[in-house]
Amino acid sequence: MPPTNPGRRRALTDAAIELLAVSGVHGLTHRAVEKAAGLPSGTASNYFRSREALLVAAAERVVELHHADMDRAAREHGPVGTGTATAPADVAGHLTELLTASLLGAATVLRTRYLAIFELRLEAVRRPVLAAALAGLQDVSTRFTAGHHADLGLPVPPERIPALITLYGGALFTLVTAPPESVGEEFVRGVVRAIVRAALPEC
Amino acid sequence: MPPTNPGRRRALTDAAIELLAVSGVHGLTHRAVEKAAGLPSGTASNYFRSREALLVAAAERVVELHHADMDRAAREHGPVGTGTATAPADVAGHLTELLTASLLGAATVLRTRYLAIFELRLEAVRRPVLAAALAGLQDVSTRFTAGHHADLGLPVPPERIPALITLYGGALFTLVTAPPESVGEEFVRGVVRAIVRAALPEC
Repeated sequence: MPPTNPGRRRALTDAAIELLAVSGVHGLTHRAVEKAAGLPSGTASNYFRSREALLVAAAERVVELHHADMDRAAREHGPVGTGTATAPADVAGHLTELLTASLLGAATVLRTRYLAIFELRLEAVRRPVLAAALAGLQDVSTRFTAGHHADLGLPVPPERIPALITLYGGALFTLVTAPPESVGEEFVRGVVRAIVRAALPEC
Repeated sequence: MPPTNPGRRRALTDAAIELLAVSGVHGLTHRAVEKAAGLPSGTASNYFRSREALLVAAAERVVELHHADMDRAAREHGPVGTGTATAPADVAGHLTELLTASLLGAATVLRTRYLAIFELRLEAVRRPVLAAALAGLQDVSTRFTAGHHADLGLPVPPERIPALITLYGGALFTLVTAPPESVGEEFVRGVVRAIVRAALPEC
């Protein structure tokens, strides 16, 4: 029977995410993971039989973390469409502030996690089971974005959402691979303004 | 003295780009490169003293190829602003066609090269000399885009260009890491329409 200590499993997968960001896919080994998690030699192989199983576990964990973040974001921001901020310029301004905070947070506070996600997405080109584990990221983002737009009363046509998620995720790749000191609020806001112009109906 | 056969050097760097796309950064070794290029054992170390030197040479070659592509694209598309297609809807339509062809080509015909570029960009997070070698990509794209907009008579405010390149490059990451059979013209056109809305001044 495989070991089932959830705390230990989580310590291993969290160490795996950290390692992916710091050392890349090639730095992710059973030995490195158990060492980073401060667990005895052999622990990682007890939980994950192969290197691919370790990669898939890291992918499942980032999807779970991403899901939790989306839920938290949805709870923190109330609707604006029902208040006074319904003029097009106000909607654009509100959406720009929300997305700037979100993208800046993803590129700074959560930089490690997104670097790990991009490492996994490139490795997934060569590993179908990893691609399957990561497919949830896109679904979660699409559902969250559509629901969030509805909650906020934002007039974003739903058919635009896949393209907008592509733009947001792609911008994040550029931000997390740039030198951290170059990732400032001003550049992020410029990118977000472009995404907001892309999102809202033309006047 | 290091060897200076340019054809052999190019064969090695082209093999390195191919290997990066197929096997990832961890698949790029001197042995794998000379084997893929059909050259004798020891050749790669004669040209590139370290693995980092090999990565930098691959980066310099992709920047050079990107530059050549931009030049070719600039020669192939004449100005539209001086013709009849100057109504805002025509400009948007023309730009959408140009960018859809460009992005679809980058994601399909040139998929290998861009997968290699994204592998290198992630590895550059850990290697400053690699980041320096890749910095040219952004400069080339910015200069080309500004010049191309001017040639075409497109009313894209120049201060928007860095954000637009971020969106285009990021969309390309999503496209080259998606299963090739899922990358169709319709999805690409949707993403490009969003970028074009982001680029052109509001009405």
